[in-house]
Amino acid sequence: MLTDEMELVSVDDHLIEHSMVWQDRLPSKYLELGPRIVETTERTTNFMGGSAEAGSEVWQYEGRIYHQIGLGATAGRPTEEINTDPVRFDQMRPGFYNSKARLEDMDLDGVKVQLCFPSFARFAGQTFLDGQDKKLSLLCVQAYNDFVLEEWCAAGPDRFIPMIILPLWDPGLAAMEMRRSYDKGARAVAFVENPAPLGLPSFHTDHWDPVFNVAEETGLVMCTHFGTSSKPPITAEDAPIAVRIALYGCNLMYATVDLLYSQVLHKHPQLKFALSEGGIGWIPYIVENADYIWERHWYHSKLNRDIRPSELFRKHFWGCFIEDEHGLAARHEIGVDRIMWEGDYPHSDGPWPNARQHVADMMKDVPDEEVQQIVEGNARKLFSFPRTA
Amino acid sequence: MLTDEMELVSVDDHLIEHSMVWQDRLPSKYLELGPRIVETTERTTNFMGGSAEAGSEVWQYEGRIYHQIGLGATAGRPTEEINTDPVRFDQMRPGFYNSKARLEDMDLDGVKVQLCFPSFARFAGQTFLDGQDKKLSLLCVQAYNDFVLEEWCAAGPDRFIPMIILPLWDPGLAAMEMRRSYDKGARAVAFVENPAPLGLPSFHTDHWDPVFNVAEETGLVMCTHFGTSSKPPITAEDAPIAVRIALYGCNLMYATVDLLYSQVLHKHPQLKFALSEGGIGWIPYIVENADYIWERHWYHSKLNRDIRPSELFRKHFWGCFIEDEHGLAARHEIGVDRIMWEGDYPHSDGPWPNARQHVADMMKDVPDEEVQQIVEGNARKLFSFPRTA
Repeated sequence: MLTDEMELVSVDDHLIEHSMVWQDRLPSKYLELGPRIVETTERTTNFMGGSAEAGSEVWQYEGRIYHQIGLGATAGRPTEEINTDPVRFDQMRPGFYNSKARLEDMDLDGVKVQLCFPSFARFAGQTFLDGQDKKLSLLCVQAYNDFVLEEWCAAGPDRFIPMIILPLWDPGLAAMEMRRSYDKGARAVAFVENPAPLGLPSFHTDHWDPVFNVAEETGLVMCTHFGTSSKPPITAEDAPIAVRIALYGCNLMYATVDLLYSQVLHKHPQLKFALSEGGIGWIPYIVENADYIWERHWYHSKLNRDIRPSELFRKHFWGCFIEDEHGLAARHEIGVDRIMWEGDYPHSDGPWPNARQHVADMMKDVPDEEVQQIVEGNARKLFSFPRTA
Repeated sequence: MLTDEMELVSVDDHLIEHSMVWQDRLPSKYLELGPRIVETTERTTNFMGGSAEAGSEVWQYEGRIYHQIGLGATAGRPTEEINTDPVRFDQMRPGFYNSKARLEDMDLDGVKVQLCFPSFARFAGQTFLDGQDKKLSLLCVQAYNDFVLEEWCAAGPDRFIPMIILPLWDPGLAAMEMRRSYDKGARAVAFVENPAPLGLPSFHTDHWDPVFNVAEETGLVMCTHFGTSSKPPITAEDAPIAVRIALYGCNLMYATVDLLYSQVLHKHPQLKFALSEGGIGWIPYIVENADYIWERHWYHSKLNRDIRPSELFRKHFWGCFIEDEHGLAARHEIGVDRIMWEGDYPHSDGPWPNARQHVADMMKDVPDEEVQQIVEGNARKLFSFPRTA
């Protein structure tokens, strides 16, 4: 069971970039084109189906409009008030976008450490792939990373695991940005679950080797949040949004098999992937099936024959869950040392402000030493983020 | 454990249509345009990536060429000979396309009953959606069904569960074809996992009500084989074929959540879906997660609030597996009465000719009465296919 000495380390949360993240950091000639908050003058719609009334606060970047989606800013709101409409900063709790206030919300929640993905920048920084001016895109990526490393995490160096984004359009630049950020304290990279749907070379090329080489050298963990291929699991255009929300975990199944059957893990034996927000209950099925299909189809599919996919998985992957009764029951099949917990603050699927009670309830029949691994130890080890004295 | 009295009822196998299925049945004016086997005169490629040498046997239908994919005709072949190239009839075991010979192969395998999906027609008859002349398409669907009901199953009325295909482009015609075939002995319908990718109205419309109404009235089971949306789970164009093969189960996860969050099961309380070839180990995760997301997103997604998705699943869905250690261990979470076994003959992922030993090994720690349900009882009950005296 969960004991008082255990500190909750959540490995999937979200920060909402405040309005000055880029305006504070971009060179003056880019302030107009770079990301800034504007009020809309007419109704607009976004890719999640939400619509914005005139007068909404939205991001403007190179003239394009990006909504702040309501599903990303819901902690503490009742189910009936959760929707995909955009939200204004004055409708949000300060903890959504201010890291000092975030610390207070974490204290309320009983959470010691968070690992925060971006929001406007998208979970792996895909927004800056949209940029027409790639010089500006690179400055935007660096500005975000400097914001995370120097501002967001500085409010609590023992409370936030520093995670950066990459200039996804150029693996050489990405490798340089990883080194630059690692030297400033980065421990994790928000990386894409699958580059191919983004129009980038797939994991079945050597395109990403510069990125993976630096990840191996530095120990930076590649955190692939579901949805970072920018390809949602849509069954039908007229299906309720909840269908894709419930199926997003399939994106991580795709990522897992795609990587297991690629050469990536054979070429980069030190690489570490953390699969974010997809739960863990699917892992035994996918990994067992990956072995089964590998045994039958390795020849015509030209798969590596030396290492079983299940062995690769146990070496290279970590999963996490908010609530996953089946996954927790199957923890010994998955590997207790591969499982972490997440609070998903301030999204609609997290337990805030009751994380500690929520975790205690889930874990009441799990032996203490396994709870310690899942809620704290595995994450601290994976991200090289030990307790401070 | 598996005992000698238990008969194996496999709920997912495949028949390969012999060259005369349509030529024997179509009106003479359609013999030229209708499906027939021809030899190619130049190299061609197909959607699975296989290529056909000149001189290969392929289907021609309204001038279009369809390969006979090698993965569909592999029983008994070693891994090194399994590939996506097309096969000629003289390279196949007669049991692939001849139901009298099939019975001998089933006897070798220790399998009493099979439920066979089509091959050239595709697993839910999607091939006839391609037809320009929909009068011909309907005749082709009816010819296939007559072939199944009058020829294929006639070789062993107690050995084959009769399963038909539908004219998917017209639910009214489909309903009529279901009634016509039911009167001739049909017990199951090979239906699509998701109509939307086929360009047809989704499950979130009332378009399919005529089909579902007849299914409820007759008890015909809707068997949705993975892949029947004709949308394979492709991660990247250059990914090995094995990636999509290992991920096809995700298509059934899509189908499950799409149906659970639709109005279909609320409007049609007697409807029965058998999910084919996707395994069962994913079911606890997907169903638990469907409940979790439903609780948080029912309001903005306008989902039915009366019946929990997990309750709907337990009432309307059946799953099956070839080999699924994790799923079998989780059988009480899934529901032992919801699980069936499949042999997948003559595809590359089945155990032929060792099915009985294969099943015995998998089931050695499962209580006899549960084995009986899984390998025989559940299928006989679901498909109204009792033992004969």
